[in-house]
Amino acid sequence: MKLWTQAHLATLTGESGWGLLEHGALVSEGEHLLWVGALDQLPHELATQIDTQQDLGGALVTPGLIDAHTHLVYGGLRANEFEQRLQGASYEDIAKAGGGIRSTVTATRAASEAQLYDAAAKRLQALLNEGVTTVEIKSGYGLSLDAELACLRVAQRLGTALNVDVRKTYLGAHAVPPEFAGRADAYVDAVCGWMAALQQQGLVDAVDAFCEGIGFTVAQTRRVFETARGLGLPVKLHAEQLSDLGGTQLACEFGALSCDHLEYLSPAGVQALAGSGSVATLLPGAYYFLRETKLPPIQALREAGVPMAIATDHNPGTSPALSLLLMINMACTLFRLTPEEAVRGATINAARALGLKDRGQLQAGQRADFCVWDAAHPNELAYFLGRNPLLLAVRGGQIRTTRM
Amino acid sequence: MKLWTQAHLATLTGESGWGLLEHGALVSEGEHLLWVGALDQLPHELATQIDTQQDLGGALVTPGLIDAHTHLVYGGLRANEFEQRLQGASYEDIAKAGGGIRSTVTATRAASEAQLYDAAAKRLQALLNEGVTTVEIKSGYGLSLDAELACLRVAQRLGTALNVDVRKTYLGAHAVPPEFAGRADAYVDAVCGWMAALQQQGLVDAVDAFCEGIGFTVAQTRRVFETARGLGLPVKLHAEQLSDLGGTQLACEFGALSCDHLEYLSPAGVQALAGSGSVATLLPGAYYFLRETKLPPIQALREAGVPMAIATDHNPGTSPALSLLLMINMACTLFRLTPEEAVRGATINAARALGLKDRGQLQAGQRADFCVWDAAHPNELAYFLGRNPLLLAVRGGQIRTTRM
Ligand SMILES: [Zn+2]
Ligand SMILES: [Zn+2]
Repeated sequence: MKLWTQAHLATLTGESGWGLLEHGALVSEGEHLLWVGALDQLPHELATQIDTQQDLGGALVTPGLIDAHTHLVYGGLRANEFEQRLQGASYEDIAKAGGGIRSTVTATRAASEAQLYDAAAKRLQALLNEGVTTVEIKSGYGLSLDAELACLRVAQRLGTALNVDVRKTYLGAHAVPPEFAGRADAYVDAVCGWMAALQQQGLVDAVDAFCEGIGFTVAQTRRVFETARGLGLPVKLHAEQLSDLGGTQLACEFGALSCDHLEYLSPAGVQALAGSGSVATLLPGAYYFLRETKLPPIQALREAGVPMAIATDHNPGTSPALSLLLMINMACTLFRLTPEEAVRGATINAARALGLKDRGQLQAGQRADFCVWDAAHPNELAYFLGRNPLLLAVRGGQIRTTRM
Repeated sequence: MKLWTQAHLATLTGESGWGLLEHGALVSEGEHLLWVGALDQLPHELATQIDTQQDLGGALVTPGLIDAHTHLVYGGLRANEFEQRLQGASYEDIAKAGGGIRSTVTATRAASEAQLYDAAAKRLQALLNEGVTTVEIKSGYGLSLDAELACLRVAQRLGTALNVDVRKTYLGAHAVPPEFAGRADAYVDAVCGWMAALQQQGLVDAVDAFCEGIGFTVAQTRRVFETARGLGLPVKLHAEQLSDLGGTQLACEFGALSCDHLEYLSPAGVQALAGSGSVATLLPGAYYFLRETKLPPIQALREAGVPMAIATDHNPGTSPALSLLLMINMACTLFRLTPEEAVRGATINAARALGLKDRGQLQAGQRADFCVWDAAHPNELAYFLGRNPLLLAVRGGQIRTTRM
């Protein structure tokens, strides 16, 4: 049993407020928190069982950060495309030259599993350096059974090797691959057909789709979701990013864990989310990188009581972001979330977006996943741009990252 | 004499182009570069004099990064103000509660020099972790002779202690302090009067002013510049950030090293900059943080051949940015600079903005200030958001930061 003392706690318990407690302490046993509170209220029977103790020096302690939406595993980069666009090339020029998502699919298929692993490990390490203790990773650049399998296997290995909880999401319905060009429905059949095989290998925690004019229709998404439901898999959705197709309403009908992006969400979509239990996952990195000007309907979501998560959406085409803290700042600066909403979005509400009830707050019974920060107040996590104040990341009661 | 081999060089020599050279090498002696080129062209007479050698493993090498505009030394933070604004407080509410720049001046005056030093050192370290080898630091939150002196002394000590070249800029004309309320001209007299004393202590490399409706008029700025000219000090200016006062034209008349911000720069201002030798220093962090929508006239500056620099403008009120790489991404994403323009903006053109001719490019005679990056191409420095690919920072021929 370990006692962590001199913690300035931001517990994020309850539905609002930071849950600040100076001179706080945590007791962890194994992977979980046994007790959280003011040190002078530590129960005597616990105090007698402490075998190790660590002084956190009055530093701020929050739940471990959770990045609930990433596409970390892929081949290649799109830095050249980024440069070409800024040099004046049009989207058509780039598509003609084999660019865009197609180039990532080609590079992903061409890469060995070891290459995919090495590239993704570096990117994941950047997130971990800022205190991420749980991360979602989607497939979706393989788009064949073998290549999707490889990507999900890489995601799984990353979690074990880098000491982070990886939640694996099957996003076969990300784009129509070249061999199915003009046959999107046949490709959806294939995506549905592969699902059970991937699930049997323990590689699917949830199923996602890209419901969009340039992705899949609501009807096609419904077929993916029906297959998932048949297999007992939870769903989530890339919804209303570029236009309002009503994917959110469909996702809520299927009890989706989350609906993600939502720039073009309609009042009817907000209504569907309200009380559905589904989380609105906001992705300010993509909004920024695409120079989108239409904001998600934050105030309507807030008034409807929809929990909001914040994630990096790391991907090579539209959000090459590798800092969840930066996304917290962007959620405040660009989307006008309060610092507390944004930090909740990267902790407790991100946990909800992954269907995880055992993390995201500091209280007895939760996992002992927490971060220790060089900060006097949690609002500093939102305020700075490009500062990493992490001192310590603790996962499952063990110190994983230390800069103390 | 030291040979650095297996360098993938981006020399940034000449007026444009990355200056890429695979299988490159550098020879440093003392603080300078003696030779830069392809390893197989290393002159024999140099080869015989090498006493140490380091293999850079094919990693990308660029000139050391230069942050040419920061306000790193101040007391307090404004994270609470950031939070209050997002909770709905108006600027008036915050001003009434003692917020805004006035709160920073109060906190700066109340802090001991040791406190100012410790706080600024942490912030500066964040910049150094990304490969900054030269940084400009302005005073401007003291606004009395003693307090300005203290801030500039802290800036100087930081350079020595943290192994970075600090260029000190006197920005007494940043705001009118409370004891001069309603007597801006009298305060300008004081600012001018303090200049020689600060200079005599070796604390002033350049003189700056905030020429703006909420700052100082063009006539007041002229007086500051005249005093600087009389003392042989170069000038620079916060110009046309919120409105077009024509400060840029004034600054060019005084041969300013740089004009900074420039969102509201007029065609006449661009004309004044063209061929003046003055650098246009763009500050995308402030643009982002203030949710400004008026872009600096980038295309006009480009066509006029005005060199453009990029800096963090780190300050507690309008740009709490501590990542120059993020500013490079923002310069591309928000201002539509090309990656090459943005990287030049944080190297060679930043050097020009500080009046330094001995750095910013990789070639014989320049300082041996360079960065080694985990990147296949320099465009990756602009592409990623919140990734730090620094492997090695070398300052004056010595390794300062290593993550290899
Ligand atoms: Zn996504
Ligand atoms: Zn400034």
